[in-house]
Amino acid sequence: MRPLALLCILLGLGAAAGAQPAPAASAAPSAVATEETVDRFFTEALEHGQAYDQLRVLTTGYPGRLAGSKSLEGAVRWGQQVLGAMGLDRVYMQDVSVPHWERGAPESVQLLAAGGAQPLTATALGNSPSTPAGGLTAEVVEVHSLAEVEKLGREALAGKIVFNNRPMNAALFRTMQAYGEAGDQRNRGPGVAAKFGAAGVLTRSLTLAHDDVPHTGTTTYLPGFPRIPAAALSLVAADRLSAALTADPHTRVSMQIHARSLPDAPSHNVIGEIRGSEFPDQIILVGGHLDSWDIAPGAHDDGAGIVQSIEVLRLFRTLGLKPRHTLRCVLFVNEENGGAGATRYAGLAQEAHERHVFAVETDNGGFAPTGFNLGSTQGNAHERAERWRTLFEPWGVWHFTKGSGGADVAPLLLQGVTVAGLTPDSQRYFDYHHTAIDTIDKVNPRELHLGAAAMAALIWLVDQQGL
Amino acid sequence: MRPLALLCILLGLGAAAGAQPAPAASAAPSAVATEETVDRFFTEALEHGQAYDQLRVLTTGYPGRLAGSKSLEGAVRWGQQVLGAMGLDRVYMQDVSVPHWERGAPESVQLLAAGGAQPLTATALGNSPSTPAGGLTAEVVEVHSLAEVEKLGREALAGKIVFNNRPMNAALFRTMQAYGEAGDQRNRGPGVAAKFGAAGVLTRSLTLAHDDVPHTGTTTYLPGFPRIPAAALSLVAADRLSAALTADPHTRVSMQIHARSLPDAPSHNVIGEIRGSEFPDQIILVGGHLDSWDIAPGAHDDGAGIVQSIEVLRLFRTLGLKPRHTLRCVLFVNEENGGAGATRYAGLAQEAHERHVFAVETDNGGFAPTGFNLGSTQGNAHERAERWRTLFEPWGVWHFTKGSGGADVAPLLLQGVTVAGLTPDSQRYFDYHHTAIDTIDKVNPRELHLGAAAMAALIWLVDQQGL
Repeated sequence: MRPLALLCILLGLGAAAGAQPAPAASAAPSAVATEETVDRFFTEALEHGQAYDQLRVLTTGYPGRLAGSKSLEGAVRWGQQVLGAMGLDRVYMQDVSVPHWERGAPESVQLLAAGGAQPLTATALGNSPSTPAGGLTAEVVEVHSLAEVEKLGREALAGKIVFNNRPMNAALFRTMQAYGEAGDQRNRGPGVAAKFGAAGVLTRSLTLAHDDVPHTGTTTYLPGFPRIPAAALSLVAADRLSAALTADPHTRVSMQIHARSLPDAPSHNVIGEIRGSEFPDQIILVGGHLDSWDIAPGAHDDGAGIVQSIEVLRLFRTLGLKPRHTLRCVLFVNEENGGAGATRYAGLAQEAHERHVFAVETDNGGFAPTGFNLGSTQGNAHERAERWRTLFEPWGVWHFTKGSGGADVAPLLLQGVTVAGLTPDSQRYFDYHHTAIDTIDKVNPRELHLGAAAMAALIWLVDQQGL
Repeated sequence: MRPLALLCILLGLGAAAGAQPAPAASAAPSAVATEETVDRFFTEALEHGQAYDQLRVLTTGYPGRLAGSKSLEGAVRWGQQVLGAMGLDRVYMQDVSVPHWERGAPESVQLLAAGGAQPLTATALGNSPSTPAGGLTAEVVEVHSLAEVEKLGREALAGKIVFNNRPMNAALFRTMQAYGEAGDQRNRGPGVAAKFGAAGVLTRSLTLAHDDVPHTGTTTYLPGFPRIPAAALSLVAADRLSAALTADPHTRVSMQIHARSLPDAPSHNVIGEIRGSEFPDQIILVGGHLDSWDIAPGAHDDGAGIVQSIEVLRLFRTLGLKPRHTLRCVLFVNEENGGAGATRYAGLAQEAHERHVFAVETDNGGFAPTGFNLGSTQGNAHERAERWRTLFEPWGVWHFTKGSGGADVAPLLLQGVTVAGLTPDSQRYFDYHHTAIDTIDKVNPRELHLGAAAMAALIWLVDQQGL
């Protein structure tokens, strides 16, 4: 999951050229039959859901599925095999050229204290270059906003390590919002610090769990300025460094990062379809992203979304429900550090004049579903979806908000497609996000399967009734 | 948490003698001020909640807090100290005589297969007696309902071990309902089997997690019939035994239990109060239960409820909110195997003609709060509480249902008091319930603190506006 602030802004746009409202159902089923079918999705998922078993294979067989890695290509083959074994109407791949960044040997960050060097638990940020041979040793300047970096300027920062240490706002209930508000430090902090001659950057991990686990994630640099080494500190390490700086403003840190960026690598989106019975050329998409950070098994981010999307297909088939529109499951690659899979998918769709009527993404963790965010250039889709709220409430799914789906369906939104994103409970998500502890034991099978059922039910309602 | 089916039935009753509606506020605060105060409970709890740190002390310092144990008495002193250190208006204890059952040496259950004995992971049920000297070895009869036991009768069951193996219904979203529906096997199974001469009972653990963890809990026996040894099997063990019985209906099991029931022991409810500014003689109660099962650290059941109840007092004080009614926090003892603390509390309240206007219980785990169940002999309290729903929804608390609060406030409901119980997300609760793995790492601090804030906000609204 990456912040989507930009696309949220774009939601204000009017109808785009490719806008395609879903056709209304030819004959509306009775309210009772509709309720029964929605319930069947949930009971089947709770009783016989297969997503959790698949997630075990994906996360233990292919951890660290970063773009360009062998693990991602293994996961691509796994996805192809799983979809292939389901007897779908069509399974295929899309070539995608993805960025290729490698961490190399483990990074090390050390606080150079009077009593000797103390290790600070850290992880290099994605896109960071290596430190110079022998490492980078410099004084540290702690800041709490990028505006502060701009204000301090070159005089204060040249040759220093800038330490972005503003915590996520714990008071916000929706932790995605807290992530979005604090995320500029990791996303843009190194690039901005480099403008003023900083030699390196350390960033407080984007998490609400106060522990010694570092959280990686992507960072960006500015054209015409140096790319400087950057790493995230665990909260324990960040607090230790901050305390050391309070005691001695001239405290120095030594960083060693061995990362490198390589030429783009070949990869693939993996796609499986159930052909629509009435409108085979009109597509309803469900998907998540197959890649994860290199240090992460990627159980919640986004192995959960992958196996939930596959489970949506299984639910339709097991329940004997033939979709009127073609139901397409897409396993996107490279959400984490580039979005090349989503861009490629949307580009190919436009080239082929494919008509998407709805696209649902799941990339906010495998926790108990609470609702959906919906986005449309055709007015407020979330208000139209409200009419189904009473069908979902018995299953804990109760709020329909305005949004932009998620990073992988957002390019479709810009083409005029109505999109949705599953909104699971978010309290625990950033405890594990982009870390080595994003493992399957953090996922509960019932919660995972409820999320798949919620998406399947929403898709079925849109398929039958339009949105 | 124990099933409350009986009390749910009693909810149909009309107004009882002691019924006490809360008086309406003298001057209603503005809607904006009300919303701001509700939000302050949540933000304070998320930013500075102390319940999680207290839960660590309670669960690691006093695990296995069963009635009659030294651990429970240590927890009683801990509770007294914690409340005492808060500078409340009054902290005191109530003498309670509690049942005293001891597990003794670890139980063992073995499947006697052709190739040799195979251990089956099991835990004796509370109130079970010991097996005879040398253990109990007998053939096993698998059943799936108590009706089946009644139907099979003495001829089929005399001298046998009855094996209650009906799973909890995974299709139910509200896992408490699945627990209630399957619970008769553990609660009454041994007593019913003893009526027909069974020598012992094994019961499938009441859980939805398919693992090798056994779940204990209380069982009861019928007057005039023997008390026979009874244990719960893990789901892995139950499935293994069932498979063995399918292969050979004469499969035998050997059980060794070393438990005993001792004379009742002295214990105490622990109580702390903030005196009401306008109606000091009118009480709003918040509470949970201090005891846990002997094998359980009791983090979710119900250490969470204890520290949340204490946090409610802290939130009022930290936010500088003086309740109009006396706010009383009660740490009940002996919820798990007798309810003596609740009975004693309600009895003393009646003797002293205390007037309770509202009583909130938290005993369904420390997971993210989703709503409240409310019960009243004065009509539908949950419908009256609906008017506050929009204040709670931004914090994920959205459903107000009819219920009976919980086991510890239910006796007050029978006296005419309006009661409520916090309804957290229930998907994971029975993964840990009554087990050795109900440890603090299963609790998320944010979820725990949100629950405390939800109760504090509801209590404040009732205090200010009546219900």
